[in-house]
Amino acid sequence: MTDILLHASAHARIKDRLSTLDPALNVITMQTDGALHRNGVPIEMDDINAHIFWASIDFLVGGPVREAMIALLKSETAQWVQTASAGLDAPVWQMILDKGIRLTNSDAQAIAIAEYVMANVMAEFQPTFERREAQTAHEWKRLPFRELSNTNWLIVGFGHIGSEVGRRAKAFGAHVTGVRHSGKSHELADHVITQSEIHNNLSNQDVVVLACPLTEATKIMVDGTFLSAMNNKAVLVNIGRGQLINEDALIIALDTGTPEAAILDVFQTEPLPEGHPLWDHPKVRVTAHTSAFGSGTRERGDDLFLENLQNFLNEKDLRNEVTKIQ
Amino acid sequence: MTDILLHASAHARIKDRLSTLDPALNVITMQTDGALHRNGVPIEMDDINAHIFWASIDFLVGGPVREAMIALLKSETAQWVQTASAGLDAPVWQMILDKGIRLTNSDAQAIAIAEYVMANVMAEFQPTFERREAQTAHEWKRLPFRELSNTNWLIVGFGHIGSEVGRRAKAFGAHVTGVRHSGKSHELADHVITQSEIHNNLSNQDVVVLACPLTEATKIMVDGTFLSAMNNKAVLVNIGRGQLINEDALIIALDTGTPEAAILDVFQTEPLPEGHPLWDHPKVRVTAHTSAFGSGTRERGDDLFLENLQNFLNEKDLRNEVTKIQ
Repeated sequence: MTDILLHASAHARIKDRLSTLDPALNVITMQTDGALHRNGVPIEMDDINAHIFWASIDFLVGGPVREAMIALLKSETAQWVQTASAGLDAPVWQMILDKGIRLTNSDAQAIAIAEYVMANVMAEFQPTFERREAQTAHEWKRLPFRELSNTNWLIVGFGHIGSEVGRRAKAFGAHVTGVRHSGKSHELADHVITQSEIHNNLSNQDVVVLACPLTEATKIMVDGTFLSAMNNKAVLVNIGRGQLINEDALIIALDTGTPEAAILDVFQTEPLPEGHPLWDHPKVRVTAHTSAFGSGTRERGDDLFLENLQNFLNEKDLRNEVTKIQ
Repeated sequence: MTDILLHASAHARIKDRLSTLDPALNVITMQTDGALHRNGVPIEMDDINAHIFWASIDFLVGGPVREAMIALLKSETAQWVQTASAGLDAPVWQMILDKGIRLTNSDAQAIAIAEYVMANVMAEFQPTFERREAQTAHEWKRLPFRELSNTNWLIVGFGHIGSEVGRRAKAFGAHVTGVRHSGKSHELADHVITQSEIHNNLSNQDVVVLACPLTEATKIMVDGTFLSAMNNKAVLVNIGRGQLINEDALIIALDTGTPEAAILDVFQTEPLPEGHPLWDHPKVRVTAHTSAFGSGTRERGDDLFLENLQNFLNEKDLRNEVTKIQ
């Protein structure tokens, strides 16, 4: 028998598909208030002993995911964790691997994040707010706009998210340079470089997107040197991790005029503290770590889990399995 | 000898490339104030007698293009007109053809208009203004958004503009239905239908883009019947001509709840009159016939004219030649 721990909301969505897949599975649901049930019967945290834990997107909204992780790490039963995250920089994921538990991360948010990037860059390139102001003033105003066509994009990290950004930028006629650890070519990038080559490739980039994992090598990658090598018309987008950027250096750089603007969905401290200078900076767009919150992310996450569950039960390869965190 | 009439600003941009192409060309420039010069010497309107007229984008900003057209139609010399327009519904173009003058229209604005469409649809699907408000209020607000992925797009008119919209929508994972006069398949559309089939294909469309010419067949195509067949979550985009839509019917439809919103760059009367109810309608985005005003349109228009001039001088086919206005 296989025991699966999952959020009660996630179970409500997939229970029919789950019982079609294998009616003999034991289902342990965790509610947002922490209450646990195995096959409908209340149990205690210490009695979880699950083989599989699906840390779905529902835990972002609520539910004691930390306690579940601790119970899981204490148990001797856990074999596989499917997470809704893409980035695995939080220490718990390394602990999962160290314990010998298999780990799969998620690409379900890649499409949403790519759409967030395109929408926000276009909102910056086009006079989005000036158009609205002109309409409010009943003003027939001929506002020109900057095109994406023929722009240069540097996409740091060309995994699921970066490559989906690349696909869309290319459809607009942009030239895409992907930064990959491996340096290997990719069909959705016109060029691929490695991290050490970024500096010499910054000056002509119109858009720089940080879509890489947070590692020792990428931490504070964007510092004063990086920023001053950028083009003064460039837009910097961070949908990776706040720790990729030295925020003090970014504010100084923006005040000096390079880059032109920054679109930030992630920060050194989240939520961004009330008095933080990024909130009111005229060249900064702040969003609340919500680039993954597209209308299709949850369904793609459900599909990924069910696909991987079938793989797991049939002893096939798991999609997005992570064996080493850089 | 070949005489070319063009705007003084356009001449300033291309004069080097022009003299490389054929140093023996006579150049007649028209300034924004109407002053005319042939090879630098002042001339009168009645002395234009040009063989070629390039009605470039510069005339949109200023210059007596109407008077130039009248002089051209009176002359017996005119052989070819290159316009910056895509739509040829204004009566002057039929007069040009009736006079036996060759006519080429422009695809230089297609990329800009496609970018306008994508940016405005995404600004509608994503909480663009709510994000800005949250930032202004220093509010860490988790705002979900509607994805383009897996949406259905109906693009009425699948020429240069419509197909460039299709290319971009497809890169986002949208399903594209193109409406073509010919009904012929197109690599950038998943399906192609004809105008008579639109009604039966409206109910499941998330985005409907009007990118067709204004003809007797398309005039007031979007009436009460069309609008009530749309989906209540649909966004209607008009970058074609104002006369494609019955604006009174659109306001009634939006007030009733279908479609969800309208993005309008063109209107029955332009500039949109001061007291017009579309200005203040909460579900309408008004822009001032500026979807073509991308940063690359002018350069693409210059390239098109020079390419066609070379074709003309070498007696080759002209790109975008129009022999019949529907």
